[in-house]
Amino acid sequence: MDVIARLDFERRDRTGVPEAVFAEGKTSEQVWTLLGELASRTGVALATRVQPDQARDVQRRLGRAFTVTHDRLARTVTVLKKGTAVAQTGGEIAILAAGTADVPVAEEARITAELMGCRAFRHYDVGVAGIHRLLDPLREIRERRIPAIVAVAGMEGALPTVVRGLVEAVVIGVPTSNGYGYGGRGEAALMAMLQSCAPGLTVVNIDNGFGAGATAALIANALAARHTAPAPDGTKQASTTRS
Amino acid sequence: MDVIARLDFERRDRTGVPEAVFAEGKTSEQVWTLLGELASRTGVALATRVQPDQARDVQRRLGRAFTVTHDRLARTVTVLKKGTAVAQTGGEIAILAAGTADVPVAEEARITAELMGCRAFRHYDVGVAGIHRLLDPLREIRERRIPAIVAVAGMEGALPTVVRGLVEAVVIGVPTSNGYGYGGRGEAALMAMLQSCAPGLTVVNIDNGFGAGATAALIANALAARHTAPAPDGTKQASTTRS
Amino acid sequence: MDVIARLDFERRDRTGVPEAVFAEGKTSEQVWTLLGELASRTGVALATRVQPDQARDVQRRLGRAFTVTHDRLARTVTVLKKGTAVAQTGGEIAILAAGTADVPVAEEARITAELMGCRAFRHYDVGVAGIHRLLDPLREIRERRIPAIVAVAGMEGALPTVVRGLVEAVVIGVPTSNGYGYGGRGEAALMAMLQSCAPGLTVVNIDNGFGAGATAALIANALAARHTAPAPDGTKQASTTRS
Amino acid sequence: MDVIARLDFERRDRTGVPEAVFAEGKTSEQVWTLLGELASRTGVALATRVQPDQARDVQRRLGRAFTVTHDRLARTVTVLKKGTAVAQTGGEIAILAAGTADVPVAEEARITAELMGCRAFRHYDVGVAGIHRLLDPLREIRERRIPAIVAVAGMEGALPTVVRGLVEAVVIGVPTSNGYGYGGRGEAALMAMLQSCAPGLTVVNIDNGFGAGATAALIANALAARHTAPAPDGTKQASTTRS
Amino acid sequence: MDVIARLDFERRDRTGVPEAVFAEGKTSEQVWTLLGELASRTGVALATRVQPDQARDVQRRLGRAFTVTHDRLARTVTVLKKGTAVAQTGGEIAILAAGTADVPVAEEARITAELMGCRAFRHYDVGVAGIHRLLDPLREIRERRIPAIVAVAGMEGALPTVVRGLVEAVVIGVPTSNGYGYGGRGEAALMAMLQSCAPGLTVVNIDNGFGAGATAALIANALAARHTAPAPDGTKQASTTRS
Amino acid sequence: MDVIARLDFERRDRTGVPEAVFAEGKTSEQVWTLLGELASRTGVALATRVQPDQARDVQRRLGRAFTVTHDRLARTVTVLKKGTAVAQTGGEIAILAAGTADVPVAEEARITAELMGCRAFRHYDVGVAGIHRLLDPLREIRERRIPAIVAVAGMEGALPTVVRGLVEAVVIGVPTSNGYGYGGRGEAALMAMLQSCAPGLTVVNIDNGFGAGATAALIANALAARHTAPAPDGTKQASTTRS
Amino acid sequence: MDVIARLDFERRDRTGVPEAVFAEGKTSEQVWTLLGELASRTGVALATRVQPDQARDVQRRLGRAFTVTHDRLARTVTVLKKGTAVAQTGGEIAILAAGTADVPVAEEARITAELMGCRAFRHYDVGVAGIHRLLDPLREIRERRIPAIVAVAGMEGALPTVVRGLVEAVVIGVPTSNGYGYGGRGEAALMAMLQSCAPGLTVVNIDNGFGAGATAALIANALAARHTAPAPDGTKQASTTRS
Amino acid sequence: MDVIARLDFERRDRTGVPEAVFAEGKTSEQVWTLLGELASRTGVALATRVQPDQARDVQRRLGRAFTVTHDRLARTVTVLKKGTAVAQTGGEIAILAAGTADVPVAEEARITAELMGCRAFRHYDVGVAGIHRLLDPLREIRERRIPAIVAVAGMEGALPTVVRGLVEAVVIGVPTSNGYGYGGRGEAALMAMLQSCAPGLTVVNIDNGFGAGATAALIANALAARHTAPAPDGTKQASTTRS
Repeated sequence: MDVIARLDFERRDRTGVPEAVFAEGKTSEQVWTLLGELASRTGVALATRVQPDQARDVQRRLGRAFTVTHDRLARTVTVLKKGTAVAQTGGEIAILAAGTADVPVAEEARITAELMGCRAFRHYDVGVAGIHRLLDPLREIRERRIPAIVAVAGMEGALPTVVRGLVEAVVIGVPTSNGYGYGGRGEAALMAMLQSCAPGLTVVNIDNGFGAGATAALIANALAARHTAPAPDGTKQASTTRS
Repeated sequence: MDVIARLDFERRDRTGVPEAVFAEGKTSEQVWTLLGELASRTGVALATRVQPDQARDVQRRLGRAFTVTHDRLARTVTVLKKGTAVAQTGGEIAILAAGTADVPVAEEARITAELMGCRAFRHYDVGVAGIHRLLDPLREIRERRIPAIVAVAGMEGALPTVVRGLVEAVVIGVPTSNGYGYGGRGEAALMAMLQSCAPGLTVVNIDNGFGAGATAALIANALAARHTAPAPDGTKQASTTRS
Repeated sequence: MDVIARLDFERRDRTGVPEAVFAEGKTSEQVWTLLGELASRTGVALATRVQPDQARDVQRRLGRAFTVTHDRLARTVTVLKKGTAVAQTGGEIAILAAGTADVPVAEEARITAELMGCRAFRHYDVGVAGIHRLLDPLREIRERRIPAIVAVAGMEGALPTVVRGLVEAVVIGVPTSNGYGYGGRGEAALMAMLQSCAPGLTVVNIDNGFGAGATAALIANALAARHTAPAPDGTKQASTTRS
Repeated sequence: MDVIARLDFERRDRTGVPEAVFAEGKTSEQVWTLLGELASRTGVALATRVQPDQARDVQRRLGRAFTVTHDRLARTVTVLKKGTAVAQTGGEIAILAAGTADVPVAEEARITAELMGCRAFRHYDVGVAGIHRLLDPLREIRERRIPAIVAVAGMEGALPTVVRGLVEAVVIGVPTSNGYGYGGRGEAALMAMLQSCAPGLTVVNIDNGFGAGATAALIANALAARHTAPAPDGTKQASTTRS
Repeated sequence: MDVIARLDFERRDRTGVPEAVFAEGKTSEQVWTLLGELASRTGVALATRVQPDQARDVQRRLGRAFTVTHDRLARTVTVLKKGTAVAQTGGEIAILAAGTADVPVAEEARITAELMGCRAFRHYDVGVAGIHRLLDPLREIRERRIPAIVAVAGMEGALPTVVRGLVEAVVIGVPTSNGYGYGGRGEAALMAMLQSCAPGLTVVNIDNGFGAGATAALIANALAARHTAPAPDGTKQASTTRS
Repeated sequence: MDVIARLDFERRDRTGVPEAVFAEGKTSEQVWTLLGELASRTGVALATRVQPDQARDVQRRLGRAFTVTHDRLARTVTVLKKGTAVAQTGGEIAILAAGTADVPVAEEARITAELMGCRAFRHYDVGVAGIHRLLDPLREIRERRIPAIVAVAGMEGALPTVVRGLVEAVVIGVPTSNGYGYGGRGEAALMAMLQSCAPGLTVVNIDNGFGAGATAALIANALAARHTAPAPDGTKQASTTRS
Repeated sequence: MDVIARLDFERRDRTGVPEAVFAEGKTSEQVWTLLGELASRTGVALATRVQPDQARDVQRRLGRAFTVTHDRLARTVTVLKKGTAVAQTGGEIAILAAGTADVPVAEEARITAELMGCRAFRHYDVGVAGIHRLLDPLREIRERRIPAIVAVAGMEGALPTVVRGLVEAVVIGVPTSNGYGYGGRGEAALMAMLQSCAPGLTVVNIDNGFGAGATAALIANALAARHTAPAPDGTKQASTTRS
Repeated sequence: MDVIARLDFERRDRTGVPEAVFAEGKTSEQVWTLLGELASRTGVALATRVQPDQARDVQRRLGRAFTVTHDRLARTVTVLKKGTAVAQTGGEIAILAAGTADVPVAEEARITAELMGCRAFRHYDVGVAGIHRLLDPLREIRERRIPAIVAVAGMEGALPTVVRGLVEAVVIGVPTSNGYGYGGRGEAALMAMLQSCAPGLTVVNIDNGFGAGATAALIANALAARHTAPAPDGTKQASTTRS
């Protein structure tokens, strides 16, 4: 077996994230075809940015063979082989959202993380204009020793910076396209997060809840795996996305 | 006397801000010539963004007839007719700066406001990463009923938003060119302040301490004048920048 | 009571601006739910960028318990507890608009200021191509000693600069998205206002009539409060937005 | 003789503008070589954006055979065959500059126009903050029936718009790179001029005094030629740049 | 009579361009109201960027009192007092368009110029990929001594540069929003025209056929007026837009 | 003790990253003053983007009381209390750099991570043009179960995407300002990393080796701490930056 | 016959690419009129970016006289004189696409190349996340000595760089507008391809499959022509687009 | 031998372009070290963007073992094993430059192509303002059946479009950073070339003469190889860069 093929074989095992279908701009047929292929092969599949009619078509086409779940708020569709469930890894993350308009992106992150076996603690509407509302989430984060936080914010995008200054957990900032005028399609929030003087804060692209949730879950899963199975021999138990 | 000339005559009296020379990119000769003309005519003149050698030349040329003051940190030169002083208006403003790199811009605002007869309460190094340091400044602002705050910040520019959420005073945000990489020449801070969801926050251009200080002082002076001379007949006492 | 909670408690009292719902991109249900909550709690609520059908739904849902007013031109909906009225503060501002296309943004500023108890003097269609039309507004501004002007302009955005050069009042520039081609979505107007050499001019984001109106009203209210109740003991009478 | 060659032959006769050397970024040797070639062939040559040492070298190399004139303020060098002079066309233009920092660009326009045989009426420091200073220039422009105005402005670039609203002459706006912060390298001024609602205003690139002066002179020369030699037979008298 | 009013009075007489209504984004009612006012006052009015239904409404509302002409290709509506006609000035301009997609903008320029009493010589589809097609237009331009050319081009925007290199006439470049991908909304064409090394070429904003046509007509009318009435006493005959 | 102060107290303990001085644009005096304060208080301090003469001054001023180390390649200065050493956490990260020009940024990441007690495995010059060179690093990363990789790349910035596709570790992409022409100051690399379809890849701002190294080390330290002290009682042993 | 006309005559013979109609934003009538003219004159015509209803109209109008082929995926319409066929040149190219969303642009390239008589070897869904899938395409490219590859990619746009590093063939990169957030309309992919350190890679504008296919076919045809008819006397046989 | 290594082995043989060192921003030591390594391994090495002192150091360090050639105009250094010479492939390309300021970039292309065994026919100063000067170059290109043209242009960047419209050869456009004001660092030229409606024109990044020369030479070499050795067995004779 040559090197590239070997790499790829290992990759499927090791990247630790289920492949997802970006449904925006795709036909319903393309979406359910891709989801069907992925779910047949790996037992689980995720589509993001799904329109209601796309979701309905997926349900109609794949609903017999798979458990299809449509989350309207998060605009996601999850496809699971019937009779299986996502194995819990014991990993824990937190997801914070600054405003109500940021919730769909935050929910996309939550569903992604849960599909990877993580538990996600959510605290929404905790923007910097109401700093005291951050107290309870932060206490929880510290007490549970949560290692990774997804912080979602549009407009001026200050939430991740403020949060990262108060905890030891890594923060993954998700700028959203909520805003208006100059810098209002997410550029202001993206720029602000990249400029942030808070080390330990990294960023994904605008509205990319999927990427942020996946990264946070990867970190949490690594910790959970290490915790329950610290031996360097590699017999990982909590196989994330296989059912 | 025709309308335009009348307008201009009233303008000199009424815009309430001393004209300033933007020294960057000008020769020393241009700077001291302009300052000399302004100070001769109105008794006071201000130059911003002054290099040390420009300041030296101004001192040498105008030092006999005027009191010339060079502030290295603020990069300003003030020129006052000998024997005169700025009349105190009783107006009070606050100036906050997020980081040490933002101090020169904050100091430019302070000197501008003081030249307009205001008292400026300064609190530097109060960036959003150390929110507790804002407590004392904010208490002072409320207790003194200060009506206008200049909030200076570079990087992600979150300070003005956070401050405006905590006081009744108007906040004038000054983005600075302190930063790096994407959005690092002040665009991130400018965008963030413009995107801010905090009504009562307005913005000036990047590094424009002069404009922010002048605006805050205008507001404070209006209040002070109204307070001491509330009569609508218009006999203004606190002639700002004339000595 | 700890510090953050205390800050927030004071904040509700002291920021002096009613919270507003940005209706663009929200469902009718989200808009009337948020408005209902705010109005129940504080007696008054404002929604901006409201579509006619959103307004109709708000009326239908909240019309029994509240006085609901929809302004089509300004695209706002105001919600007031039945039997109450906005308390007049005695504050006065002026609102200028360069072109007819800028009027909706100017009207959003007016309604905001009026909701804060201010009286707003309007002068529309006074762009720099007809400078003589500025004469009457400016005379009125000076005679009434109006302390703050909202100047709304799209295209090349020169109005705030010209106005600020002729009066002592602070000018809050609102660039609008009226324009075309290069810089035509408000960037030209925003840039021009930020570049303006007129100190005393500050800026809000493109089309942000709400923010500009709120800032002008804050300044006018501070003056009116000081005038009628100059004592530093803080017994503020003109409680702005409570009925 | 084939078409292209014929076109080119006619072109040299007919574009009506002397070719110029853009000296910025060129070595002294390149500058004087190009100037020497042009002046030998056509009797006149112009270099713009010339550094003092470049000018000195041109003088040393071409000073014997040509009359070399260096204008420090305009940063130009003019080279004329000895014993010749620019033929006056009778054309007249006006050049306005908003601020002192805009004067070098305005002067580049003046020298270009004069080299094309035009008379240039200058009025500097007539920015929109002092509109009354425009009165005398505008009166002169109307009385002399000047057909084309070069209006030079940096910062917010409002001068050309205001001027064009008050005269029948065509206005050529020249944005300059004088400014700071967002839009401060001439973009604000360029955008504002392009957005201007004043028909009859056209624009050249940032700091392009040469192009603006040449265009204004072309128009003025066309009028002067038509005036003195209205016959459609085409016997043009006022051969612009040949001596 | 004070100065500003005097200026404005003269302005109406002297800017030489009819005011136009930019119909895009306006309601039909706003369009016909504005057109009616203008046409009642000055005898002629022009609307640009008119949708078919807007045009229909203008016809229905103003068709009795005025001669209303809708040009679908140019997207303009012209309104003339019944029984009057545009006075011919004798001015002549040329209009070139690079591609068929550029024709609507070119036609907007033609209608504007004709409304100002000019004759417009059109040559469309003469892009730089077929340079030989420029031969006839250029010969005509030279033979008729046409003083001003409107050159309309999208995509890479090279036409105005090439044309200006071949004639003595002033060229007004109009970049159009025809293009795709990077720079495809007119920025590429605008930038290319501004960068052009051809002096005598000036530019208006993207798709601004009205501004370009007005400028060219102003130049042509000045020449025609000078030609027929060269006396400096100012008794202008060819009153452009009055009927 | 009130909430904010408590938060801040906890913050110093819990963010887990030593504060760093960004030396670029600071005077030597500012740099060594800040470093001295930090090192006195916490035992360790780091300066990034240090010029050689700044480093010399730090050595001269702080060399007696502290162990000062200047890394020319990484442009860092580290200051440690004499007689102390960084406590090893057992955490391990990998650092990959695409080209030799990217090495200084990679080294800044390494020094930051080492200062936080981590071991950093480096593999430089492994750009996507030589994919086979990635084989050994990737094998090592998998075998050592390294949880976080810093991937540094300028130009087209493809390295992090390719790497993330082949391992389970989280990848932190650092775009560098190495490039030329369009997108050449790091924008191309930043954009490419943000666009990357590889979940598990997050990004810091251009040239921010410090932030990337800190984040990777935070993750590695969390794992190491969990591994050696898995009890949820919170008795953290591996106090990172205190000696 | 003069030079320009001669050039143009030769041009029609020699540019080697059929003219195409860019259908986006055109009416059906404009599309079929232009196609009919082109096909009548040269025997073949191509329209790109065609909507289904435009295609239907072309079929209805030209279907009698011509063979009209609509490719829904590629969004093209091909029009061929009845009874003729594209002459095969023997040229061979390869077309690679990174993702399924990039396929329409790739297919546009294929149809263009086939219309020029080339054979196109397609390999889709070979993005850099599955490098091993490139093995077979690359082997084929080397074995067939294919001289030119069209590589289509959106998002981070890394495919062309990776491919060019592995073959001797010239690579023409086509960035697509597939992406999201910052740089998501093709700018990231365009920038990345332009920044690429791989010489032998050139780029066309975003989504320009037509231009890329034409260029690749030009190269392949030149090779095929040279191969079959190597004599320098120029008797070219494989007349590409004539039937 | 595994796949990746095999690919890389083949790559060295097959990409057909010598690796080059981008000297800008590198120390002399880095430049000569890299050049020495490359030249030792492959017999030839090229450095671009070389400063005179860097070149001197390369000569001093490598001059004994290698033939070192510094081209001041092109800013390149070529390093060849002593006693060897570049094998001529018989390939021929043409290089056109619009202005004298574009010559250094054109020369970089020439030297690259010559190092790959090609003959380069140069024609400089053939900008679109002097179209007749293109006649001789184009005749030569057609008569010699040159398959690839490098067209270098700054400012408005129209040359490649015009040229491509007149020949069958593929055109590789190189935008240069010569320009000023808006779009003046090469963006205008880059945009214009990408927007060009001329299929068969592809583009490299701003000032990338090396990439353009390499691509043109690859095409020319492929033709030359096919011509002299048309057998599909692959025994390539004209080993480009090996001596």
